[in-house]
Amino acid sequence: MTTVLGQNQYGKAENRVVKITRDGDTHHIKDLNVSVALSGDMDDVHYSGSNANVLPTDTTKNTVFAFAKEVGIESAEQFGIALARHFVTSQEPIERARIRIEEYSWDRIATSDANSRFIGADEVRHSFVRNGTQTRVAQITFDGERWEVLSGLKDLTVLNSTNSEFWGYVKDKYTTLQEAYDRILATSVSTWWRYNWTSDEDRAPNWNKSYDQARTHILQAFAETYSLSLQQTLYQMGSRVINSRSEIDEIRFSLPNSHHFLVDLEPFGLKNDNEVYFAADRPYGLIEATVLRDGAEQRIPFDMTNL
Amino acid sequence: MTTVLGQNQYGKAENRVVKITRDGDTHHIKDLNVSVALSGDMDDVHYSGSNANVLPTDTTKNTVFAFAKEVGIESAEQFGIALARHFVTSQEPIERARIRIEEYSWDRIATSDANSRFIGADEVRHSFVRNGTQTRVAQITFDGERWEVLSGLKDLTVLNSTNSEFWGYVKDKYTTLQEAYDRILATSVSTWWRYNWTSDEDRAPNWNKSYDQARTHILQAFAETYSLSLQQTLYQMGSRVINSRSEIDEIRFSLPNSHHFLVDLEPFGLKNDNEVYFAADRPYGLIEATVLRDGAEQRIPFDMTNL
Amino acid sequence: MTTVLGQNQYGKAENRVVKITRDGDTHHIKDLNVSVALSGDMDDVHYSGSNANVLPTDTTKNTVFAFAKEVGIESAEQFGIALARHFVTSQEPIERARIRIEEYSWDRIATSDANSRFIGADEVRHSFVRNGTQTRVAQITFDGERWEVLSGLKDLTVLNSTNSEFWGYVKDKYTTLQEAYDRILATSVSTWWRYNWTSDEDRAPNWNKSYDQARTHILQAFAETYSLSLQQTLYQMGSRVINSRSEIDEIRFSLPNSHHFLVDLEPFGLKNDNEVYFAADRPYGLIEATVLRDGAEQRIPFDMTNL
Amino acid sequence: MTTVLGQNQYGKAENRVVKITRDGDTHHIKDLNVSVALSGDMDDVHYSGSNANVLPTDTTKNTVFAFAKEVGIESAEQFGIALARHFVTSQEPIERARIRIEEYSWDRIATSDANSRFIGADEVRHSFVRNGTQTRVAQITFDGERWEVLSGLKDLTVLNSTNSEFWGYVKDKYTTLQEAYDRILATSVSTWWRYNWTSDEDRAPNWNKSYDQARTHILQAFAETYSLSLQQTLYQMGSRVINSRSEIDEIRFSLPNSHHFLVDLEPFGLKNDNEVYFAADRPYGLIEATVLRDGAEQRIPFDMTNL
Repeated sequence: MTTVLGQNQYGKAENRVVKITRDGDTHHIKDLNVSVALSGDMDDVHYSGSNANVLPTDTTKNTVFAFAKEVGIESAEQFGIALARHFVTSQEPIERARIRIEEYSWDRIATSDANSRFIGADEVRHSFVRNGTQTRVAQITFDGERWEVLSGLKDLTVLNSTNSEFWGYVKDKYTTLQEAYDRILATSVSTWWRYNWTSDEDRAPNWNKSYDQARTHILQAFAETYSLSLQQTLYQMGSRVINSRSEIDEIRFSLPNSHHFLVDLEPFGLKNDNEVYFAADRPYGLIEATVLRDGAEQRIPFDMTNL
Repeated sequence: MTTVLGQNQYGKAENRVVKITRDGDTHHIKDLNVSVALSGDMDDVHYSGSNANVLPTDTTKNTVFAFAKEVGIESAEQFGIALARHFVTSQEPIERARIRIEEYSWDRIATSDANSRFIGADEVRHSFVRNGTQTRVAQITFDGERWEVLSGLKDLTVLNSTNSEFWGYVKDKYTTLQEAYDRILATSVSTWWRYNWTSDEDRAPNWNKSYDQARTHILQAFAETYSLSLQQTLYQMGSRVINSRSEIDEIRFSLPNSHHFLVDLEPFGLKNDNEVYFAADRPYGLIEATVLRDGAEQRIPFDMTNL
Repeated sequence: MTTVLGQNQYGKAENRVVKITRDGDTHHIKDLNVSVALSGDMDDVHYSGSNANVLPTDTTKNTVFAFAKEVGIESAEQFGIALARHFVTSQEPIERARIRIEEYSWDRIATSDANSRFIGADEVRHSFVRNGTQTRVAQITFDGERWEVLSGLKDLTVLNSTNSEFWGYVKDKYTTLQEAYDRILATSVSTWWRYNWTSDEDRAPNWNKSYDQARTHILQAFAETYSLSLQQTLYQMGSRVINSRSEIDEIRFSLPNSHHFLVDLEPFGLKNDNEVYFAADRPYGLIEATVLRDGAEQRIPFDMTNL
Repeated sequence: MTTVLGQNQYGKAENRVVKITRDGDTHHIKDLNVSVALSGDMDDVHYSGSNANVLPTDTTKNTVFAFAKEVGIESAEQFGIALARHFVTSQEPIERARIRIEEYSWDRIATSDANSRFIGADEVRHSFVRNGTQTRVAQITFDGERWEVLSGLKDLTVLNSTNSEFWGYVKDKYTTLQEAYDRILATSVSTWWRYNWTSDEDRAPNWNKSYDQARTHILQAFAETYSLSLQQTLYQMGSRVINSRSEIDEIRFSLPNSHHFLVDLEPFGLKNDNEVYFAADRPYGLIEATVLRDGAEQRIPFDMTNL
């Protein structure tokens, strides 16, 4: 044999589990897309096809649905921790579990005044409309001793219609770009941050509160930064999260620079005073960076924010 | 020649125009995807390639951007009406124009209290986050005399966690489905409605108010209907719109029945009391119907809601 | 009641059925995505939620899979005909069935010479690679008496690197386009054609041969037409299909004009002699037209080619 | 400052460049999607917004198009190498360049015999149809001294209709899967491999030949392996590439197990003898692994095959 097996993992991906919890007539919904990836003593299945160490991916799927009942879903992170712990501690050959989760959020549908007189306000405590503003994401990894919890979001699309400039850059023989002193700055935020919680002996963060706060800081930093470059805005977003949330040590962003080109209306005898833009698809600038708490280790994979 | 030309149309599709309007420091944003389709005396270009009657699609694109400045964008419908009128009245060979528009909505980003002390509340009146809950759509058609305005929305995903049953159906030799007395009802609403405004001599509806009200009625009818079938829910949604909005005569829906299957947890010794569901992708039920004001003509194409 | 029910239909969409047929060691594969839409006496289910006339969409799904065994899949059209006939003739309330099918094609994987000595050529008669060049589509409609069969394809992307011009067009105040005497012409063909077979008393076409021939004529007409406009190319594609295939009376196309813009390399001291292009996404020209056999009725819905 | 900047990179992503090369009347086409990512001395632009070290992403786009003319496109790898070398050697602050490329392949359209008599066989040497069977990918990284070239493909969908089993696996309390002794094995191959060429002083591989051969080995290994698990098939695919191609030291795969479930036709009185399958979308098994030449270093990022 002149070849050897390197890193490997397997499991069931994209288990779409919806959990309804009833608090009297008021229902709550959790809507997750859960992917399981397990690693360990898996040489034989690759070399010879022996499945003696392989817990079927079908079983990992069943476990996701059973755990929705057995442990419940308070947050994506808590649910992923329960799953990862189960796989690593219950199966001898499995040494590492990585659970990735997307969470879709739902808002309640407001009842109509007219009808609520007849059907009762209780009746619509079970009606939801999906909020498509962003997707929450989480990744939980456990090796039997150490936890790594990454959380984040994607597809959060934001735009500033002013307070953005871009000038003073390098000019080489291929440079034709004109400097801009008032431009639209738009991006679709994709980000993962890393919690410094790693041990069962320490108290875990309040995952839902942390997520909400990190999201708010990102939005506000975007809105409040007078931007000389998208890199500067990125750094402001990252540093505000880390400075405000002591439980987070590292954050990485991928920020496409979603170009809005000012349309030349002069041929039609019109003046375009930063009013009419063409929103381009491709190509786009892509700005990626990690922001770290001073002294913290950089652990988030560079392409994580592009998944 | 044994072949002849049938219906035909052409134009520039998917012009992504963003318009910023400034009211002092407060900015407003309109974000549209505009598609132009023109028809008329176009035999020659098909038969011989003569472009003598062809206004280039590039020109239709330029017109969209120029009109964003010249006439402004108050609503997708008003903007489409201006464009359709222009093409039909300014170009002799063009007898009919159809403008299709998607509109993406944006919410304002709330400023942080801490920072607003320093940078001033004015500063964030130019910051927006895209609201992904649904996409608004409109189609305006003009033949020089008569207007047809269709409006609607798509990708509005809703779910009731109870108050839905399905039983009493036909059973043939291929039927295995068990009757359901308490199920999740979920769908992604795609709908187009038709306004009865057709003439410049009549007063046009308030397009934005109509849209907001129709959307609200659809959401509330979904939430408030105790459903024995998705068809019944569809009809309730449609009739509530028409009964509440005198300017709308016809509405068509495509409602995928987004199946949420109760997971069998018995093999694991667990009881699933309408708590844990598997959200399936394909196949899905697809329920489509038109609801009409009594006496109104059915004009919305049957596949319109699948575009 | 001031509202009434208009056109409506329902059924299970996107049933992904794969059929393996064994001819000794040689396997054959058919890979379809089948959508069922039924109409008929369905007032009650919309007005009151009574399902007494409703064959469940789940049953229509079961029927698709059962028929893959019972009648087999020789072609998408023959399979759709069997399904449509079944629903209309076996269920009293169902007056019309429409079956839509996408078919994905697979090629055989060639064996390696070296290994075939050991494992035998038979061994790889069961191995396939999916051919992504286009998707075949079919729609079969039956009302108990009359058949309508539409077939077509989509996502067939073609490009001519020369033999395309565009000039002599209308110029208005919004026209800035330069005339082109040698440009790239590229499109992604979406087309539906209609067979003139309508009755069980007539002999049905050879569906697979018809499809193959129509596809070939479309490709060759695209390649062999010296194009003065995409409309002209479209008409050539359509008329060649109708002139060559007596079983086809009508064909409709949607052809996006996938713009390839010549990049201005002069700022870099380079000459771009029709060599380097930027392939743009949006906006794009969209050319749509029906070509008819002289005297034939126009029946394909205008937006059919955009589905 | 309590935060610091970690790894960062920037550039223009998804530059869609099409290059036509003319060999008399015979045209050749190269169709690439090129993404540039540059790193180096970029602290200032993140901390203060100073762009003094920033070559604009717009310039990196211009360079891609200019290089299509200046150096030509023989292969994705050769083109990426030229770009990476340029950015690192021409810009003082840039210490590392990473070029990612997707390549779309095109086949020639065969002329019709009948017409070729009239228009000449030369006429269609400029007509192409896009081959959608897979997408070729490449990533070239250069730090001024050392090259790393990764190549691969994605979206190559393959299926064996027999010669696949799955049994003998671990069974825990959540296991309900039945053992399978003859199942469909289907996947969509996503793979990256790493060349051991790292220095300008060594002779570079023949990139196009390497790609073609690696692709062929992957297809044949898939077809010829009697599979007891998808992991075993993966390892066979990887080891065959490495054993056959001395220029490749490492290869990683992501293989979704695209489940084809045998449909239960017994309720309809039918026997399903491995004939009728339901092709499921989600969830799916996901098998990922790296195969290495014995002694080689593992360098391909684990999530690379999921991009």
